[in-house]
Amino acid sequence: MGMKLEDIGERALVRRLSGIFSKGSGIIEGAGEDDCAVVDIGHSECLVITTDMLHRTTDFPEMMTPWQIGWMSAAVNLSDIAAKGARPLGLVMAMGLTPDLEVGFVEDIAKGMETCARTYGTYILGGDTDSHSELTIAGTAVGLTQKDLLVRRSGAKPGDLVCVTGHLGSAGAALRALMNGHEAGGAVMRALLEPVPRIAEGLALAATRAVTSMMDVSDGLAVSLYELSRAGGVGFRVHAAKIPMLPEVACLDDALSLATHTGGDFELLFTIRPDALGDVRKACSFSVIGEVTGEGILIEREGKDETLPERGYEHLRTTTYPSA
Amino acid sequence: MGMKLEDIGERALVRRLSGIFSKGSGIIEGAGEDDCAVVDIGHSECLVITTDMLHRTTDFPEMMTPWQIGWMSAAVNLSDIAAKGARPLGLVMAMGLTPDLEVGFVEDIAKGMETCARTYGTYILGGDTDSHSELTIAGTAVGLTQKDLLVRRSGAKPGDLVCVTGHLGSAGAALRALMNGHEAGGAVMRALLEPVPRIAEGLALAATRAVTSMMDVSDGLAVSLYELSRAGGVGFRVHAAKIPMLPEVACLDDALSLATHTGGDFELLFTIRPDALGDVRKACSFSVIGEVTGEGILIEREGKDETLPERGYEHLRTTTYPSA
Repeated sequence: MGMKLEDIGERALVRRLSGIFSKGSGIIEGAGEDDCAVVDIGHSECLVITTDMLHRTTDFPEMMTPWQIGWMSAAVNLSDIAAKGARPLGLVMAMGLTPDLEVGFVEDIAKGMETCARTYGTYILGGDTDSHSELTIAGTAVGLTQKDLLVRRSGAKPGDLVCVTGHLGSAGAALRALMNGHEAGGAVMRALLEPVPRIAEGLALAATRAVTSMMDVSDGLAVSLYELSRAGGVGFRVHAAKIPMLPEVACLDDALSLATHTGGDFELLFTIRPDALGDVRKACSFSVIGEVTGEGILIEREGKDETLPERGYEHLRTTTYPSA
Repeated sequence: MGMKLEDIGERALVRRLSGIFSKGSGIIEGAGEDDCAVVDIGHSECLVITTDMLHRTTDFPEMMTPWQIGWMSAAVNLSDIAAKGARPLGLVMAMGLTPDLEVGFVEDIAKGMETCARTYGTYILGGDTDSHSELTIAGTAVGLTQKDLLVRRSGAKPGDLVCVTGHLGSAGAALRALMNGHEAGGAVMRALLEPVPRIAEGLALAATRAVTSMMDVSDGLAVSLYELSRAGGVGFRVHAAKIPMLPEVACLDDALSLATHTGGDFELLFTIRPDALGDVRKACSFSVIGEVTGEGILIEREGKDETLPERGYEHLRTTTYPSA
């Protein structure tokens, strides 16, 4: 018998599959390389495209409303568009629906999608509905960016500053609270259930031309730093005291671990040229949490450097919420 | 309790959901209107985009190989791109995989996708993998077309000729054979298991500027004629004797019913200006099967006209293979 998926995990699978797909000359980023695939379509523009499949048992906590399911399904894809600094053109949503669902439930999902798309200046362009054994939503978002403004996972140089939008650890704290049978505060719960794709921030950051690499942190800060490290051939040193957290998260005993090693926060992690910090500050609100180094992923805490372990959300070997 | 999906069927659901999604000024075709959504992206070009979710129990007959599953998942989306006369830019494929699948099985799915994409001059750009309770593949294809060459479901005028590429009824005949426990001949089985998206034909037909409406017949000829009728405000009269069938299908007792009322044949159904027939013949191979009328969907058989009933594949109330 051959090896099974449960034996190798998602990252190894993606690596194997990426090796099967060929990359044409117009493809700037191909399968498995970045938050989005990027295709040169001429006229100095690139099309960016991303897809994410979410489903009931793994991605939608029991108490999530259908409206939130719809919002989430659009938001996770828009977050990938944001990570490329691109302008979204729209989304298509394929929905696998169990026949016993109420029509109103599905309409509420659609309303959540619509509100999310419209909130970020874009549209639900179309989709597909299908009878399925489990509620499953596969969204695809497309966007456009100027070729000369394209930001990628690679590009960071030692000495660049490491930055992040918003707060980290909120979605993880909310999820843990839910698993322990209580609800967290409003802002913390919203981070888990109604994540905000950083479309405006992504566009403004790309326009500064000072961003040297970018991705979203949906799989957690640690995993994302390792991804940027592999893509760019650099290391990182981040400072525990500088990681932005909501007060309700910062006061928890394991706040730092939530902020570094849980996923579901759809913030942008990016690096900038240090001389451009003043200009980038005008683009949007963010925190500087560290600097790019030659190698290694370190976290400095009370003056001591430690290696930040590569741990976080990975599909196929876990059923932990949330994913993207 | 509210109404359930199984009470209303797919078409009514799509109508309800389409009403929820707003349509921006740059959107030429929106949700639920056509084989693809169509977005004006400037420079006289349109982006076309389509998504389809397929899954084990409904879409992949037991004896389908993983390679064929991959091919099929790409082909159904490319067929929608073909129906717009567009040039495919690429596909993204979201895959829900059961953890007990063998790695080699999933690699074979990827190889089938890759071969299909490369056969039609395009690429698998990226995707998403996810642990799922049932093998589920949601593909999305994007393409480009010149705005002035865009063909739509609407646009047919009374007097136009009704045409179709390839042969009809093959996939239905193959499926019935499988259900009866035997295999049909090679060409018939391939129509079901390795459908050919008519990319070259779609491009060549659009370039003639003589095509007044087009769609693919994946849900069956009858359903497709009704769709074109609703979109264009016209009727159709087709001639039973002119419907193209492979010899192995034509000899069956219910050949006509297979050709008109089973899905899974990914051929292009289109209408052309009658004066342009000679020019269009140079674009690709096809059969003229009837003419556009003012109203009604009629089939002429041995000199007698009958209404062609609107029956065919519809999701949510059936588990019949195949779908798209």
